[in-house]
Amino acid sequence: MNKQILFSVTLASLTIANGNAQKQNSLERVSRQPNIILFLVDDMGWQDTSLPFWTQETHYNEVYETPNMERLAKKGMMFTQAYACNISSATRCSLITGANACRHRVTNWTLERDKATDRSSETIQVPDWNYNGVSQVPGTPNTFVGTSFVELLKQNGYHTIHCGKAHFGSIDTPGENPTHWGFEVNIAGHAAGGLATYLSEKNYGHSRDGKPYSLMAIPGLENYWGTGVFATEALTQEAIKALDRAKKYNQPFYLYMAHYAIHVPVDKDMRFYPKYVRKGLSDKEAAYASLIEGMDKSLGDLMDWVEKNGEADNTVILFMSDNGGLAAEPAWRDGTPHTQNYPLNSGKGSLYEGGIREPMIVSWPGVVAADTRCDKYLMIEDFYPTILEIAGIKNYKTVSPVDGISFMPLLKGMGDPSKGRTLVWNFPNIWGNDGPGINLDCAIRQDDWKLVYYYETGKKELFNIPDDIGEKNNVADQNPEIVTHLSKQLGNYLRATGAQRPSFKLTNKPCPWPDEI
Amino acid sequence: MNKQILFSVTLASLTIANGNAQKQNSLERVSRQPNIILFLVDDMGWQDTSLPFWTQETHYNEVYETPNMERLAKKGMMFTQAYACNISSATRCSLITGANACRHRVTNWTLERDKATDRSSETIQVPDWNYNGVSQVPGTPNTFVGTSFVELLKQNGYHTIHCGKAHFGSIDTPGENPTHWGFEVNIAGHAAGGLATYLSEKNYGHSRDGKPYSLMAIPGLENYWGTGVFATEALTQEAIKALDRAKKYNQPFYLYMAHYAIHVPVDKDMRFYPKYVRKGLSDKEAAYASLIEGMDKSLGDLMDWVEKNGEADNTVILFMSDNGGLAAEPAWRDGTPHTQNYPLNSGKGSLYEGGIREPMIVSWPGVVAADTRCDKYLMIEDFYPTILEIAGIKNYKTVSPVDGISFMPLLKGMGDPSKGRTLVWNFPNIWGNDGPGINLDCAIRQDDWKLVYYYETGKKELFNIPDDIGEKNNVADQNPEIVTHLSKQLGNYLRATGAQRPSFKLTNKPCPWPDEI
Repeated sequence: MNKQILFSVTLASLTIANGNAQKQNSLERVSRQPNIILFLVDDMGWQDTSLPFWTQETHYNEVYETPNMERLAKKGMMFTQAYACNISSATRCSLITGANACRHRVTNWTLERDKATDRSSETIQVPDWNYNGVSQVPGTPNTFVGTSFVELLKQNGYHTIHCGKAHFGSIDTPGENPTHWGFEVNIAGHAAGGLATYLSEKNYGHSRDGKPYSLMAIPGLENYWGTGVFATEALTQEAIKALDRAKKYNQPFYLYMAHYAIHVPVDKDMRFYPKYVRKGLSDKEAAYASLIEGMDKSLGDLMDWVEKNGEADNTVILFMSDNGGLAAEPAWRDGTPHTQNYPLNSGKGSLYEGGIREPMIVSWPGVVAADTRCDKYLMIEDFYPTILEIAGIKNYKTVSPVDGISFMPLLKGMGDPSKGRTLVWNFPNIWGNDGPGINLDCAIRQDDWKLVYYYETGKKELFNIPDDIGEKNNVADQNPEIVTHLSKQLGNYLRATGAQRPSFKLTNKPCPWPDEI
Repeated sequence: MNKQILFSVTLASLTIANGNAQKQNSLERVSRQPNIILFLVDDMGWQDTSLPFWTQETHYNEVYETPNMERLAKKGMMFTQAYACNISSATRCSLITGANACRHRVTNWTLERDKATDRSSETIQVPDWNYNGVSQVPGTPNTFVGTSFVELLKQNGYHTIHCGKAHFGSIDTPGENPTHWGFEVNIAGHAAGGLATYLSEKNYGHSRDGKPYSLMAIPGLENYWGTGVFATEALTQEAIKALDRAKKYNQPFYLYMAHYAIHVPVDKDMRFYPKYVRKGLSDKEAAYASLIEGMDKSLGDLMDWVEKNGEADNTVILFMSDNGGLAAEPAWRDGTPHTQNYPLNSGKGSLYEGGIREPMIVSWPGVVAADTRCDKYLMIEDFYPTILEIAGIKNYKTVSPVDGISFMPLLKGMGDPSKGRTLVWNFPNIWGNDGPGINLDCAIRQDDWKLVYYYETGKKELFNIPDDIGEKNNVADQNPEIVTHLSKQLGNYLRATGAQRPSFKLTNKPCPWPDEI
């Protein structure tokens, strides 16, 4: 019990918390730590917005209306190469622990305890990944144990609010409940990574007797049942109530506004749906657009709250999505599958850009220059050290290494932590859908180059991302040295972080690492 | 922010937490930390039980039926001289922070923010006490900032459950919500220190539209509204659901079962009320007896859960009350006021034994000898270091000094931390009722002697507690040296801990300390 391997820097954060709390007779907020809002959208693609993140305006930029994302971008910095994992669980586990998915091994989606969610294959055995998700405490099999940055925020004086989708740990594991991660308030968060329905008419997934009819019924919104309030709006109203209360506490707050939107089912948000029908969109596409604009309205409501309450100058807002837009399921979208994130290839589940590149914006008055763009790349686990740095928490201990690197230099326009850096994705799993770049693969990005490696076939693809953002031209054959270099880098990273790989059922041997072939 | 004054011992508890969590692949529970249940009853007097805590069986011992307290006592150790504060808020703030009430200054009861609850006096001005309660974070006026031992339990691997009355901080302060104190689960706890009603027929204090009609409406029990389930039972059922869930987490748990019972209103728990009417009790007394037995049934249900779930050998149960039985309000009790805690004098609000001596039992199979009694005295803030020691948490930092002393030596029958120790109470306030030993006083216990000092009159009373448990014979005049010694000890403690005293309105001068007169 006394033995310990501790990672990261020197002082225990508790010490800092103590230092703060010691000023018990001071009524001033400690050193004006800024409020922080992380606005995380679910399954939102890079182009699911009227705000152009590409060099050109796309069809979808013209179709969708996200005036509040535009408003936020005017106040802050757009990031055009912000990456997450290809699947929600992996992203959220990286976010809360700071670990890359190679390390935390929650690589596919989680829901029920002790149940892997991979489709089966006749030829490939997926590894025994962490399908129970992440936890702050040991004792659960197939679980990665990490330290929550929210816990650290709380210990350092923040009032911490969770609103929406949690999806950190499987049902009946300690990670299932946001309060186990340092959140003092939990609105509607639990194990599930999706929702039964956005509709209050269906009690968000509960029958008339009040019992959930789906594991994905949204909990905690009983007051809105039958009111006609769309889930996105109900969550927003609850978040604002929590902010009203937070203001009384005279603490800096951390609001994790983790919308269930725009995950399927693509229900119609009737506040916006008719407009898109009038614009000529199909039923499905108008419904999808209504999900997006409902989410955007929520962003605007939170920005309004911050402004009306005199907190605008002291509030950092980070906007992000958790993986690419869903493009593999024709039931939910019109058009040719895997094209809905154009100019990016593929979508959610894929290691192509369509699955991992996210719309990201950060506003921080007085620190981040207004109306700017940053084309440097960064990764979802970078939010961990960045948010702690924003909060002024410089010394903290964690039970597992933090793979993320603070992007504060990018925010301040002082330095480039991306230069030469490798970003790595690993998906030794089989998701529910197939498609370009989806399943049994891993990938690495370094500067302009990206290598995708397929475990089963040994195939390697090399793309020059700035030249070929759509990843249509595999230039591996023309650049053998780059392929070798990136394969080695990728293999080293995978092994160093304890990443998993699939095996061949025929031989029971593991698939080769990318630098073994 | 880096300056800090830290109290207590050396290592940051977070370090230990990290050490534990590091064993991320171990499925064993860390070092078999025991489960801990603190069963805290509200306003329960020393004789409100069939279990005799005095040397003789009393009338009330014969009238009331608490078979599960008897059952618990058979498994563990009864403490016959366990003390709390004279008022609930003071006790609960001492419990959660480890500070004596002299230090935390939450000496009267709290409810609404920035509102003192003292009755006014023509002659005396009460001090500006901490009527906003306690908090883990600074920033609220009239608030004591302390470190919660529950937070430390959580950081050291415990799953932490709050059920029932919280009453740590006033409404709209950070201390109002148990989740701000390290509780991962909060069932029905908020700022209020009482309850509107135990009756589900009255929705525990909510109108038909679901809105509370009282600041003391019990929150969070919506599922029991209109079901006929008494609040005590509803809380018990919810606690057991939380334990069922805790078991899945493979963590040690801390359950703080903080009943609203047996606080007024003295509603009838109809499961038990008729029996007491048949026994010949008056309507009021039968109702009071039913509150007691309903609470006792809850204790039994929790003991049953522990036994049925194979956790009996690894669970510590601590039974305690928060102040003496209410004896000052004829509306709620029959008989002569201030006699209902016989053989003790007075009751809740008083610094006589009737206001501060509590029924206490501790069971811990394999550690605490079964069916034993301990006559050594201890104080409510002692629970703080004791519970942390039970949990094996030896090194932790707190933002304010811990005045409590572990009673582990008493539990193990190895040593006597009470010998020569001084216990101090301070009540520079004016409560809602008058009576023996109530209002504007302070007191000290050392070995057999107890001195009570009255701020306004300067009167000093000295009692030999073993000889005169009813505090009827003031022997101050016969023992001037003891009076002087205890006055000095008391004055020193009050000043050293920053205790407050009232002032004379006429002169605007503070009342003398006990050793100044």
